[in-house]
Amino acid sequence: MPAPFKTVAVVGKTDAPVLPEKLDQVVAVLRSRGASVLMDTRTAEAARTPPDEAVALDTLPERADLAVVVGGDGTLLSCARLMAAHGVPLIGVNLGRLGFLTDIPADRVAETLGAVLDGQYVAEERLMLAARVLREGREIFATHAINDVVVSRAGTGSMIEFAVHVDGEFIYSLRADGIIAATPTGSTAYALSTGGPILHPGLMAITLVPISPHTLSNRPVAIRSDSRIDIVLVRGAGARANFDVQSHVDLVPGDVVGVAAAAKPAILLHPRGYRYFSMLRDKLRWNERNS
Amino acid sequence: MPAPFKTVAVVGKTDAPVLPEKLDQVVAVLRSRGASVLMDTRTAEAARTPPDEAVALDTLPERADLAVVVGGDGTLLSCARLMAAHGVPLIGVNLGRLGFLTDIPADRVAETLGAVLDGQYVAEERLMLAARVLREGREIFATHAINDVVVSRAGTGSMIEFAVHVDGEFIYSLRADGIIAATPTGSTAYALSTGGPILHPGLMAITLVPISPHTLSNRPVAIRSDSRIDIVLVRGAGARANFDVQSHVDLVPGDVVGVAAAAKPAILLHPRGYRYFSMLRDKLRWNERNS
Amino acid sequence: MPAPFKTVAVVGKTDAPVLPEKLDQVVAVLRSRGASVLMDTRTAEAARTPPDEAVALDTLPERADLAVVVGGDGTLLSCARLMAAHGVPLIGVNLGRLGFLTDIPADRVAETLGAVLDGQYVAEERLMLAARVLREGREIFATHAINDVVVSRAGTGSMIEFAVHVDGEFIYSLRADGIIAATPTGSTAYALSTGGPILHPGLMAITLVPISPHTLSNRPVAIRSDSRIDIVLVRGAGARANFDVQSHVDLVPGDVVGVAAAAKPAILLHPRGYRYFSMLRDKLRWNERNS
Amino acid sequence: MPAPFKTVAVVGKTDAPVLPEKLDQVVAVLRSRGASVLMDTRTAEAARTPPDEAVALDTLPERADLAVVVGGDGTLLSCARLMAAHGVPLIGVNLGRLGFLTDIPADRVAETLGAVLDGQYVAEERLMLAARVLREGREIFATHAINDVVVSRAGTGSMIEFAVHVDGEFIYSLRADGIIAATPTGSTAYALSTGGPILHPGLMAITLVPISPHTLSNRPVAIRSDSRIDIVLVRGAGARANFDVQSHVDLVPGDVVGVAAAAKPAILLHPRGYRYFSMLRDKLRWNERNS
Repeated sequence: MPAPFKTVAVVGKTDAPVLPEKLDQVVAVLRSRGASVLMDTRTAEAARTPPDEAVALDTLPERADLAVVVGGDGTLLSCARLMAAHGVPLIGVNLGRLGFLTDIPADRVAETLGAVLDGQYVAEERLMLAARVLREGREIFATHAINDVVVSRAGTGSMIEFAVHVDGEFIYSLRADGIIAATPTGSTAYALSTGGPILHPGLMAITLVPISPHTLSNRPVAIRSDSRIDIVLVRGAGARANFDVQSHVDLVPGDVVGVAAAAKPAILLHPRGYRYFSMLRDKLRWNERNS
Repeated sequence: MPAPFKTVAVVGKTDAPVLPEKLDQVVAVLRSRGASVLMDTRTAEAARTPPDEAVALDTLPERADLAVVVGGDGTLLSCARLMAAHGVPLIGVNLGRLGFLTDIPADRVAETLGAVLDGQYVAEERLMLAARVLREGREIFATHAINDVVVSRAGTGSMIEFAVHVDGEFIYSLRADGIIAATPTGSTAYALSTGGPILHPGLMAITLVPISPHTLSNRPVAIRSDSRIDIVLVRGAGARANFDVQSHVDLVPGDVVGVAAAAKPAILLHPRGYRYFSMLRDKLRWNERNS
Repeated sequence: MPAPFKTVAVVGKTDAPVLPEKLDQVVAVLRSRGASVLMDTRTAEAARTPPDEAVALDTLPERADLAVVVGGDGTLLSCARLMAAHGVPLIGVNLGRLGFLTDIPADRVAETLGAVLDGQYVAEERLMLAARVLREGREIFATHAINDVVVSRAGTGSMIEFAVHVDGEFIYSLRADGIIAATPTGSTAYALSTGGPILHPGLMAITLVPISPHTLSNRPVAIRSDSRIDIVLVRGAGARANFDVQSHVDLVPGDVVGVAAAAKPAILLHPRGYRYFSMLRDKLRWNERNS
Repeated sequence: MPAPFKTVAVVGKTDAPVLPEKLDQVVAVLRSRGASVLMDTRTAEAARTPPDEAVALDTLPERADLAVVVGGDGTLLSCARLMAAHGVPLIGVNLGRLGFLTDIPADRVAETLGAVLDGQYVAEERLMLAARVLREGREIFATHAINDVVVSRAGTGSMIEFAVHVDGEFIYSLRADGIIAATPTGSTAYALSTGGPILHPGLMAITLVPISPHTLSNRPVAIRSDSRIDIVLVRGAGARANFDVQSHVDLVPGDVVGVAAAAKPAILLHPRGYRYFSMLRDKLRWNERNS
């Protein structure tokens, strides 16, 4: 049976010393299944085994049937934003401790990745956010995020004030350090540190988590992912919108940060037997008691 | 145009001194719209204006096209459990400060209730839970809940230990004071006091909120409402399952409390212009700052 | 040089299978330092090596210069209440994973306990609470607690209401599951699970931590330990006062639970090199990241 | 009897439109008690009634026996830092809603301030922090703070990492948005929004509150105010130390922010009958229930 993934993109965390060795293993497994291997130019430079072709990073999504990310959760997040719009699924090989997203251990690439390529996988859709910034009614920035959109004070010492609207309905105005709009994927990242709930990835929801709110009764809210969220900066020099902590826009009062579900989700492939809560239990050490 | 609600059940909070006066007004409005008025026997006893018919409380759902609850959120919750299985919508007239659910103010019964009867309303479905308790594999109790199912220690001073499964998958075992499985409606009740997130009623979700968990990294989780939750009591003399704080079962180790979405939601009718977040903002005083 | 501790009480967790073996080691070390060994009758029964004398548990404090507790934090807490009033210091040998309080590992009894007996120790005072329950102005119960005094709902499903006074000043009245008054020692026990702060044992303070309070702006408070706290049960069938989860009193509305610092602290001896925060960092796994 | 306060400094929030009118009243009361009135030059410019003398703001502490601050909590905080070192007590007249600190209502200046000047007051000491920043072992900044010292990420989107030491003992290293070291006064300000405990002003304590910590078991800690705290920036471009949100220093990795109790507290005078918890109950709306 021919492999279902004929052309596979391999993207690595290029500053990881162990990367070249792992790339060798990944490429070997891919070729053993008859797949042709693409790399972005930076990964290709880091690789000892050359790919079949090295192309610009943003060309990968059009060409690949699958993306294998060799790094950590951060590398996979970047890559997922790129791949999601083209419906290219992703697999994550983790170079360190297993991540929330990258769940093939580096020391078991051969068997685990091989099995996935042979069709032994669980596919999981992850909600993506489409975010944009409007200034005086005009869009000045647009991007996708898989974890979160964060509006927060940046350089200044004082709080910011913003108003939140959902589907055009005013929800609250708040003085705070900021607010996080997180996907289920992002609910175990920054939003969790800030007191937000964990949203199961199967739940089509977005959570709005205030950061250090002045109003003590203001609590995290979860809404349907087909809602349209508008965060309007009311007051605050030095506020900023952050998208997956990878891009940002400095805001001025009156700016609107709009957040909605993206048209297409990211698709993650996990080794067979993957279970969300099992991963979570391990990452958050729910098995261990403090007393 | 004839009223769409021909037979209307009226259920009152019978220990409220102001009830008889309010019932007069409610009945007057209903009759002005040509509706026939049913009451449960206890409400009928408290009423100065007799209904068209007084029947047993649990007969009401089969007979009524609509239920008007005159009391507070507690009265409406009880009534909702009764009505939901028969698809009878509910309206709440609040005798005190407006509730999360009962949003017709007592001093505006005539115009507000009248308008609703004339079709000027917003209908809202609220997720109901079907809960049951299994002992040695046999169901010993079953009920519905609109707010929450709570498994917690009762008389004893020490913690209990339980294991939580979702759709057959083990999620965690926990030593704690207990755990709450709450609907969006219940997410602003006990679960909120315990640190749970607010779930918008439009989100088909259940939140699992641990109560004083030993493991500090254990946090509230929200899952899809079509999930099946099993809470297994592992250890703990004196544990108890509570359903909407209205019925309870004493548990012994090995007992399983099963929770899933009920087949039918409760249906609330709100005066036109109702907005969930507007109600919430008022109830939680999000407009007011502490500093 | 004669040992400073001539008569040493040894108290064991009698249901621990490993106890007899550990008692052998403890007794051997004590005798090697010329100490005479007392045991309570239950520990003496469990011991393979007989003590110099077996006496009633509550006689130990008058006779001993030191108490060696062989068990876990729970055993040490019980013993500390007993010893504190007589100024007898305590050492804890832990039979399982190291505790917050019992910090001599079972597999290093010989050298670690020996060094402590030779004067290589750090003495630490721990605040004790003196608690009492007043009914109609008359004291119906009095005890000491080293962790906490907890007023909470017991068997009932509904909240309780109570008023809190500090030094005669009304602080707040609260509807909640309950309230915890915790010492620094207790601040890492139940109070921590409930959202309370960690109080360094050197801080002469008591923290008042509400349990699932209805008023969302109600937060943990820390006050001076020379304050007098009165918790008045206002409403709530089935409320109960708990003292270190070891004794309790069922309360009726109007009952007052009074809490103040006990006249004498408990005195813990730690192996030289003991550091509070180092112990805490280990117990709470502050070294480990979740992401 | 001559007034105990012969020379009184009056400092106003100069951008408040109502200030001139209130200054008239304040000056009238002071003169009616025979006090001589000093103002800083900016307040003098805003005043309709000229003071006896206008001097530079930082000259006031040496000259005055008392400072009357007309503004809000922010104005009083600034002034308190100035006055504390000289032991000059402060009174706050609030121009808006009563503050945590400024408790003479603007519409009752005559009687309330008059009574205080006549000796009808409660004096309260408030812990001040002495903070400094060391770079390569050399002090590059030093200031006092009455609320808090905050080390946090500034412009960047990513977390910072720092190590905390107390009295030379390593406590933890943490990846987080930052950390707050707050006095009891500051415990009801930013630290409260971030989940910190409320410390009674009579408690000589400092609370360390992590901001959005990665390690979920990391919780607020309270330590004795005679502790010396050192916060070492380990990693993080764009970290910053803030002092009462009024001055700040940009940090580079290796910088140490040292915090300890200042030699002298701030002294606040309150109208007779002042009670800390009564003020708090009002500010945090503990009287009002959400459900």
